[in-house]
Amino acid sequence: MQSKIRIGIAGYGNLGRGVEMAIAQSPDMQLVGVFTRRDPASIQLLDASVPVHPLDDIERFQQQIDVLILCGGSKNDLPEQGPALAALFNTVDSFDTHATIPEYHAALDQAARPAGKTAMLSVGWDPGLFSLNRLYGEAILPVGATYTFWGKGLSQGHSDAVRRVPGVKAGVQYTIPAEEAIERVRNGELPELSTREKHKRECYVVLADGADAADVEQAIVSMPHYFADYDTTVTFITEEELRRDHAAMPHGGVVIRSGTSAAGTTQVMEYTLKLGSNPEFTAAVLVAYARATWRLNQQGVVGAQTVLDVAPALLSPKSPEQLRKELL
Amino acid sequence: MQSKIRIGIAGYGNLGRGVEMAIAQSPDMQLVGVFTRRDPASIQLLDASVPVHPLDDIERFQQQIDVLILCGGSKNDLPEQGPALAALFNTVDSFDTHATIPEYHAALDQAARPAGKTAMLSVGWDPGLFSLNRLYGEAILPVGATYTFWGKGLSQGHSDAVRRVPGVKAGVQYTIPAEEAIERVRNGELPELSTREKHKRECYVVLADGADAADVEQAIVSMPHYFADYDTTVTFITEEELRRDHAAMPHGGVVIRSGTSAAGTTQVMEYTLKLGSNPEFTAAVLVAYARATWRLNQQGVVGAQTVLDVAPALLSPKSPEQLRKELL
Repeated sequence: MQSKIRIGIAGYGNLGRGVEMAIAQSPDMQLVGVFTRRDPASIQLLDASVPVHPLDDIERFQQQIDVLILCGGSKNDLPEQGPALAALFNTVDSFDTHATIPEYHAALDQAARPAGKTAMLSVGWDPGLFSLNRLYGEAILPVGATYTFWGKGLSQGHSDAVRRVPGVKAGVQYTIPAEEAIERVRNGELPELSTREKHKRECYVVLADGADAADVEQAIVSMPHYFADYDTTVTFITEEELRRDHAAMPHGGVVIRSGTSAAGTTQVMEYTLKLGSNPEFTAAVLVAYARATWRLNQQGVVGAQTVLDVAPALLSPKSPEQLRKELL
Repeated sequence: MQSKIRIGIAGYGNLGRGVEMAIAQSPDMQLVGVFTRRDPASIQLLDASVPVHPLDDIERFQQQIDVLILCGGSKNDLPEQGPALAALFNTVDSFDTHATIPEYHAALDQAARPAGKTAMLSVGWDPGLFSLNRLYGEAILPVGATYTFWGKGLSQGHSDAVRRVPGVKAGVQYTIPAEEAIERVRNGELPELSTREKHKRECYVVLADGADAADVEQAIVSMPHYFADYDTTVTFITEEELRRDHAAMPHGGVVIRSGTSAAGTTQVMEYTLKLGSNPEFTAAVLVAYARATWRLNQQGVVGAQTVLDVAPALLSPKSPEQLRKELL
């Protein structure tokens, strides 16, 4: 019997916890340790038998970890941690700052390749599964247009922006795709859509004591970049309602490729995700790609890799024969 | 500049014509010839400057064709043609008899591998893109269930069955997915669905002179395997209505993976195709995989391959750098 793939987790927030859950659903994998910059004693894992170590000690674990899943943030953690850890381990991360993917890719490649390691970056659903579907769409229907709509989902960046407004005690923001726009795309109309036509934004806000609701609402809806270009609604709620109704982290969206054959026939490819938990789903994608990363490394494929480089069969614990028989 | 990928087409029915159209939309490819078992003079291509040759002469063209796209049928043509041609050319086909894929794969592999050729089988949307989504679904959400619904679409096999009924002059059959069943799956209910609950069948029939409508309807709806297990409707139409309203070959369907995280959260992945023309779309998928087949062969990856083995980036004419920058 093949031995289990030994996984380490670096960083234990919502994403790291999701990875722990996803490994528990993967019989061919084993979680060998969690690494944190916080006090290890302060970390409570779902499985208390798994050890928690200081991240600073991780170098000692090179022989015990096949793939390290990096669960830090794209803004502050990964640009530094990613290349440093990719020189020591096979890694998988969810780096999602689209604009800087090329330079992050180069940094990882430079670190991983000489070390004989494989560094899988930007895994998740966008970038990730949505990227794959943008690629399949335009490769198969080269004459056409691709549309991505996000939501309904909780946006961390926009929620942070709401919370920075004076007079806001707490709050969340949901990105809502415009159903009318999606319908037009589905019907093969190939519409040109403005920012305002594609998404709406809904804010749920707890007012600070003495703050003026009208002022706060105005400050939010007129905020440049974040809200001014959208139809934005602000609903004031109590702290209890926030806790009760807005604690989940749902998200999702849809990628649509609408293409035309040389005969003028319309063909529509559509990929939809409806996620009860954004971090738990992103974690599940990371774990499947950790399996592929280990296999690629075993095959001698080293350096920076992305979901675009991974043959789908590498994601599954099943054998090629089984996959052809059961799924093809 | 890289030279164009030189494509040959073996078989020129609806699928072969679709492949000719798709190549015309692919600037990195060139159609060098069509090969047929019919009289070449009887074949009218969309581009009259492309030569048509007897299939029996194809061996002479080994140096002029990079990838041969096989456009014959799965029942009678491919089981014999596939291995014979895979010993001479890199091939791509749309073999879709799910039950015999393993043995067809073995036969192709045995022919192609010693010849240093790459044989890509079962390309299209099911098997093909739907297979990919079944794989991505269960690899990412291992605890859950996968559902495939087909239609609304014209089914060749069921249309043939209708036409074999005594008293039927002509007719077509559409497979209709049950919207209520799809809704239940989308909502994460993980329902157990009977054959009757998943699809309905609609037949449009032209009666032969003197045939009894009630008898014909009864013969259709009670036909074992094809219709008896479904809610089937039969609508009688005129020959002119058949020509006018039922000449297109639309199809499509949806693959849904409904999974549950270890925390009990429901996550739903959904892949939908809405195809104005089934053969034109299948052809477009074949052409994208012809590009990948050529690249795999150039990399030394020979023998039988399927869509499950193909890294997505190989399908696109864009460079890896461009893909990462634009699509990731």
